[in-house]
Amino acid sequence: MSKFAVLGHGVVGSGTVELFLKNRELINSRQGTDLELGYILDIREFPGLSYSDKFTKDINDILNDDEVTVVAEVMGGVNPAFDFVLSCLNRGKSVCTSNKELVAKKGAELIAAAKAHNCSFLFEASTGGAIPIIHPMYTSLAGNEITAVCGILNGTTNYILTQMIENGTPFDKALSEAQAKGYAEKDPTADIEGHDANRKICILSSLAFGRHVYPDWVHCEGISNITAEDAAYAKSNGYAVKLIGSVKKLPDGKILPMVAPRFVPLSCQLAFVSDVFNGIMVYGNGFDEVMMYGKGAGKLPTASAVLGDIIECAKADGTILSCTWEDSADNSFIADHKDDTVRMYVRCSGSSTQDIEAAFGSVDFIKADGINGETAFITAAMPEKDIDAALEGLCSRVINTIRLLG
Amino acid sequence: MSKFAVLGHGVVGSGTVELFLKNRELINSRQGTDLELGYILDIREFPGLSYSDKFTKDINDILNDDEVTVVAEVMGGVNPAFDFVLSCLNRGKSVCTSNKELVAKKGAELIAAAKAHNCSFLFEASTGGAIPIIHPMYTSLAGNEITAVCGILNGTTNYILTQMIENGTPFDKALSEAQAKGYAEKDPTADIEGHDANRKICILSSLAFGRHVYPDWVHCEGISNITAEDAAYAKSNGYAVKLIGSVKKLPDGKILPMVAPRFVPLSCQLAFVSDVFNGIMVYGNGFDEVMMYGKGAGKLPTASAVLGDIIECAKADGTILSCTWEDSADNSFIADHKDDTVRMYVRCSGSSTQDIEAAFGSVDFIKADGINGETAFITAAMPEKDIDAALEGLCSRVINTIRLLG
Repeated sequence: MSKFAVLGHGVVGSGTVELFLKNRELINSRQGTDLELGYILDIREFPGLSYSDKFTKDINDILNDDEVTVVAEVMGGVNPAFDFVLSCLNRGKSVCTSNKELVAKKGAELIAAAKAHNCSFLFEASTGGAIPIIHPMYTSLAGNEITAVCGILNGTTNYILTQMIENGTPFDKALSEAQAKGYAEKDPTADIEGHDANRKICILSSLAFGRHVYPDWVHCEGISNITAEDAAYAKSNGYAVKLIGSVKKLPDGKILPMVAPRFVPLSCQLAFVSDVFNGIMVYGNGFDEVMMYGKGAGKLPTASAVLGDIIECAKADGTILSCTWEDSADNSFIADHKDDTVRMYVRCSGSSTQDIEAAFGSVDFIKADGINGETAFITAAMPEKDIDAALEGLCSRVINTIRLLG
Repeated sequence: MSKFAVLGHGVVGSGTVELFLKNRELINSRQGTDLELGYILDIREFPGLSYSDKFTKDINDILNDDEVTVVAEVMGGVNPAFDFVLSCLNRGKSVCTSNKELVAKKGAELIAAAKAHNCSFLFEASTGGAIPIIHPMYTSLAGNEITAVCGILNGTTNYILTQMIENGTPFDKALSEAQAKGYAEKDPTADIEGHDANRKICILSSLAFGRHVYPDWVHCEGISNITAEDAAYAKSNGYAVKLIGSVKKLPDGKILPMVAPRFVPLSCQLAFVSDVFNGIMVYGNGFDEVMMYGKGAGKLPTASAVLGDIIECAKADGTILSCTWEDSADNSFIADHKDDTVRMYVRCSGSSTQDIEAAFGSVDFIKADGINGETAFITAAMPEKDIDAALEGLCSRVINTIRLLG
């Protein structure tokens, strides 16, 4: 028998227990496992549950029980989660986590601890909720060199942007709707400023390129300056607007991770990922491109990913290899996004089309119904720093700029 | 060192070797493997290749070399592939295959042979080409009861249908274009009559529900009776037309696998899977829904899936559990599609709207530009046999019928 423990009985923790108890027989018969729930760690009391006898307030009950071979950490936050996880790994117990902050900030250290103690540290649920993305990257796609990853990694902002583009809803109203539906928190900063997507692109970047990318090293922009007018320009000209977490390998070997809103052309599958759904596109030198799509958050969807990892650990004997990356001493392998070549959507006023073409060369001028007194255009592909310089030289009032994807 | 052998040096076999040689160092360093190409079995001569010394015409060279632990079968067809694969498994060598016909017809037997000899039989490449779908179903999604799978499993027909709906191209012309581009074979029967999709939905059904589903047991319709008019009705009324392989579990415990063209509403992500791409939607009681999208065919995309399985086998010690199902003595667990409840698109002539509503109750009448002299409508959800009976009673000329998805 393999017993597993769950650290934290919040939304994801209670979902993990619920899903396991619902599907236990099917799992154990189909997967060849003999999994049982051993403990749930929480400082709160949960009387009256069918599994109330499993609760403990003392991590040592879990650490000292040799029958516990797998621990799911679903508490969130770095402390005390990090200490608990490290203690489990140091005892040779595999750990699965949904905690993106923990993985983004401490992943390399915890992976190393797992290897040192012949156990595994898995985190499918940390990125993309229910969507299989971490596991396919180190298994099914393992024969490839990954060249780029880009995705809609945050459901809250995708809901807001979907309302803005489909219904012309202004940003503030779309945010209020998201809060009313429980998709956004009272303090929505982590979502709308891109911090949540940042942690996830750090995890995907580290996995794809083998070196830990820390959140502070990633250029990160949110969506709070996107207006209904920007959404109208996008919709009228064959684009969606999405908050995209992306990373790509450049010819000089550096990588460029970034979080920023993008105009996404309808030729890209991500343009059709709407509402609270997430979609993650991966590019590689054999498979070309694949996209994984599904629910990026929620009780049972996230629990599904945690439980998949628990089963994987229970079936494995020793460290699950290659869910792995090395720590990075510095960020010298991260490129400056200002050196990257992009196409840019620009809205400005006070400049003639002649002025604009003098500054940028040939551009695509675009229009949207009911928006007057300004000029909008999309530049050719050029280094971002050259776009900055051209905008500077134009001396007009720049209302907004948004990068195109691809 | 793990040596692997490749049976067949056609498109997929040469792609597998090419991708491995290109990425060998990256694979072995990131995956902790020590993989080397041991043999390629082919009756033809391939002089002048950098790896010409690896060829053999004798399967015994592979069977008798104990250093060969993994064999990739990429010959296609049941014979002699089945004998070769079984011989390898009986010697304890794991086998990975791209051969959907072999898996659909002999999967249960080969899985049992792998288990008996403590090795693995994997087939990620048999369904969805490069798309990770088999592997996620038995790993990341393993904590769920799978309730349904539906997908665009054949790129050739998806290319044809995309041309018909986007450009109004007639079927025959779209097929010719697909042949000219190399997407369709000279004899396109296996694709356009749904036989290829049938094999793939058999594999996915068997994996999802644990019992072997044989192709003869699946109701299978192709796309050759879809016209440009049908595509016009779909487009004008918010649908795509797709050839869908589907399976779902019914309340009585039976399953219903089927291959048929469908009107797919734009609320379903599969509506946006165009051209030669494949997309597979999976439904489960925890994750809700996920979709995997990518290239369903092609040299390197298919090789990517084969190579992922080779690496998986090289990393595993013994049988990889739960890529597994039991053989089925009979088809008593397969439901009759005529008992299933569907919405149906119907085109007919010679009946008034009153006649139609008398026969079907309330329906949605639909129109398409430039099509006159007939009536088109979409029924409410009702048992398919009742739709048949109502059409019979209507005594009008039925031009075409296509089921809706969902």
